[in-house]
Amino acid sequence: MRIAIYPGSFDPVTLGHMDIIVRASKIFDRVIVATLINKDKNAVFTADERVNLLEKSLIGLKNVEVVKFEGLLVDYAKKVNATTIIRGLRAVTDFEYELQLALVNKKLCKDIETVFLTTSPENIYISSSVVKQIASFNGDISNFVPKSILNDLMGKFK
Amino acid sequence: MRIAIYPGSFDPVTLGHMDIIVRASKIFDRVIVATLINKDKNAVFTADERVNLLEKSLIGLKNVEVVKFEGLLVDYAKKVNATTIIRGLRAVTDFEYELQLALVNKKLCKDIETVFLTTSPENIYISSSVVKQIASFNGDISNFVPKSILNDLMGKFK
Amino acid sequence: MRIAIYPGSFDPVTLGHMDIIVRASKIFDRVIVATLINKDKNAVFTADERVNLLEKSLIGLKNVEVVKFEGLLVDYAKKVNATTIIRGLRAVTDFEYELQLALVNKKLCKDIETVFLTTSPENIYISSSVVKQIASFNGDISNFVPKSILNDLMGKFK
Amino acid sequence: MRIAIYPGSFDPVTLGHMDIIVRASKIFDRVIVATLINKDKNAVFTADERVNLLEKSLIGLKNVEVVKFEGLLVDYAKKVNATTIIRGLRAVTDFEYELQLALVNKKLCKDIETVFLTTSPENIYISSSVVKQIASFNGDISNFVPKSILNDLMGKFK
Amino acid sequence: MRIAIYPGSFDPVTLGHMDIIVRASKIFDRVIVATLINKDKNAVFTADERVNLLEKSLIGLKNVEVVKFEGLLVDYAKKVNATTIIRGLRAVTDFEYELQLALVNKKLCKDIETVFLTTSPENIYISSSVVKQIASFNGDISNFVPKSILNDLMGKFK
Amino acid sequence: MRIAIYPGSFDPVTLGHMDIIVRASKIFDRVIVATLINKDKNAVFTADERVNLLEKSLIGLKNVEVVKFEGLLVDYAKKVNATTIIRGLRAVTDFEYELQLALVNKKLCKDIETVFLTTSPENIYISSSVVKQIASFNGDISNFVPKSILNDLMGKFK
Repeated sequence: MRIAIYPGSFDPVTLGHMDIIVRASKIFDRVIVATLINKDKNAVFTADERVNLLEKSLIGLKNVEVVKFEGLLVDYAKKVNATTIIRGLRAVTDFEYELQLALVNKKLCKDIETVFLTTSPENIYISSSVVKQIASFNGDISNFVPKSILNDLMGKFK
Repeated sequence: MRIAIYPGSFDPVTLGHMDIIVRASKIFDRVIVATLINKDKNAVFTADERVNLLEKSLIGLKNVEVVKFEGLLVDYAKKVNATTIIRGLRAVTDFEYELQLALVNKKLCKDIETVFLTTSPENIYISSSVVKQIASFNGDISNFVPKSILNDLMGKFK
Repeated sequence: MRIAIYPGSFDPVTLGHMDIIVRASKIFDRVIVATLINKDKNAVFTADERVNLLEKSLIGLKNVEVVKFEGLLVDYAKKVNATTIIRGLRAVTDFEYELQLALVNKKLCKDIETVFLTTSPENIYISSSVVKQIASFNGDISNFVPKSILNDLMGKFK
Repeated sequence: MRIAIYPGSFDPVTLGHMDIIVRASKIFDRVIVATLINKDKNAVFTADERVNLLEKSLIGLKNVEVVKFEGLLVDYAKKVNATTIIRGLRAVTDFEYELQLALVNKKLCKDIETVFLTTSPENIYISSSVVKQIASFNGDISNFVPKSILNDLMGKFK
Repeated sequence: MRIAIYPGSFDPVTLGHMDIIVRASKIFDRVIVATLINKDKNAVFTADERVNLLEKSLIGLKNVEVVKFEGLLVDYAKKVNATTIIRGLRAVTDFEYELQLALVNKKLCKDIETVFLTTSPENIYISSSVVKQIASFNGDISNFVPKSILNDLMGKFK
Repeated sequence: MRIAIYPGSFDPVTLGHMDIIVRASKIFDRVIVATLINKDKNAVFTADERVNLLEKSLIGLKNVEVVKFEGLLVDYAKKVNATTIIRGLRAVTDFEYELQLALVNKKLCKDIETVFLTTSPENIYISSSVVKQIASFNGDISNFVPKSILNDLMGKFK
């Protein structure tokens, strides 16, 4: 069984993340969406809230599972028997940072590969920080996040 | 069974291509290396020679197969039941061109995903055209191509 | 009256070009779509055919006009009293080339400005060369070009 | 009447900003320079000081006006009847960020276009943060900012 | 005598920095490694610790010297009679930032040139922040830093 | 004595090339400007004409010498005892290509370093191909090339 891990902050999950997860779920037998417990970063949502939003958004995707993790990604990947790391690419600046991460992770653990997927063009400009910025000014975020969590997000930002 | 297709000119195959093929062979059940029969492009090797060089280089990789193809890649992928296209990424300019190709292919056939892999740092500067340019000046290409085909290449370039 | 010039090869016009033209027509009083008569470049369509395809595609846009030109763009712009050059941007590699062109044109004629527009995400991967490549393999180009010229294009490529 | 809005922090205004404003003032009937009241960002100058420095720098440009704003840019643009957003482009990393912003703003309000201008080469390396860094070490900033505000800036940084 | 200055935070020195220093020491008569005393940046090591780690790593390189500095780089360069600034380039985003710095420094002092060197591919993904992140999770950093300071680093991070 | 080699097509030499050569002549004891005898590339000027234009442009630079070469650059560099290759960087796309070349040359000959210099902003948009394109339309190229060769160029293009 081929297990892939998709790590991220997901603060909150966007339609861009959803796009990557759906694509990955077709390529791999099992996809583990791994929410980073990032202590120092000033997240809007707690790790548990972010996991909860992901789970609400992913209902119906049978081979996808949501977890929390901290520490080195490659260590966690080995623990859950994932042999592939999934990353989304949208822009050139993404690409360079992601390439560096992939090379470092390969150096730390040579048995784990990183594969890159890209979102559909209509999601290419969506990011969690864009969602948070628009929401903080009471802008309309319904085109950027899964419908099933829109109310939860609006509640938080009010 | 998950079948992936890795298309290219492979004129000739390099250690960079080999790196991608070996990585892909660990992620997918079967990898089809599809050599493009490019008529107008001034290739040094014929399509049959390029297939032959690939086959010599890939001995021992059980789930990898070499073929020739022409026409639209997505049509050929469907014909051989491949659901994933593999592409290697080395540089930013690669990335932009590849992103465009991936979006076009997705538009032409929504059931086929493109995934991107990266080579090891020591192969990041290798390309078929670099190999051809160095060989044309009798430079040493032994660090850039599989050992098993070095003599074949030297013969051609002399 | 503010006149802008939108230069290009338009071999053939795509939905990406159309997107830029429609946007420009809202910002400027008059937009001149200037088709480059490029002798050495191996165009599929003649300059007259390209102008004709543009005119068919632009029916209904009252402040837009299609012309042919050769020579230096800034000279032609001055001749038709255009004070602004319009260029579309999709990718980073586009951007660098376009920035160089804009600086050169500014140096050649300091009274003419270049402004850049971007297409909608759904057109971001469309280019004339993609259209020609797909059409040459009998692929479906209906998502990439204006409907009003689809038959003309199919006729040409058959 | 065509109204364009040029948003920014302007902390402080530089010769690069001035270059963009002068160019925009030739293309549009009226240009509104909109100073962002950014609370969390650690600005050196208050919003009122930044507006004041802009006004001093822009004396003589008849169709340019300086304002403060907060909230979503597209909301403010609609309020002042601006149909175009002006942004300056200097570098590739600028471009990617700006492209994302433009696509988000288009999604939030489809009637407002973003157009990009570029500065002259001699201003291409100037930014507000470069000015602040040099001034903080008593370096010479006279090549980077309008002459009319040089004394005000020196006073602040001492 | 040609003196070059190689400025940086070196928090801590990595094999990537070492690569650049060794290359520079072959091109110039004397190389001054200038450690920036950056007060506001949250460095893990003090300036004195960083200098000490550099000195331990550079034993045997006769024409290389380590110093601390604060203020404008060009002022310090003039003070020590350096006529060239050395910078390492790994990625496109590096390049744009570095190009801006080089142009600013040239404007501030026209007699000082900036030259760029690149690391070997096997160091291309190494940075001080990657080292710190891995070390903070007890990951293995022995492939990223000079052997002679590995114990010092491990002691600090525990 | 530190000898550097600056290779290129120089078809024809521009103010951008001149800028790099002058900078390099201050950093190295001797600079060899090496004109590539490129047979297949459709050059406007012969190798001898290009050397002649360089020599006319470089009068007064005592430690600079112009030569022709063919074959692998590293072989020629070794022959003339050059230990450093000089390359100019203007744009991101330049950078990626140049980085690849530098890594390949380092692999072919580990004793030769590549160093990168950048031109002044006012030359950043100048290239030989821009000069040729403008000249072919009788445009004004006096801002792009050394004055001492302007007449020679005009004669050629007429």
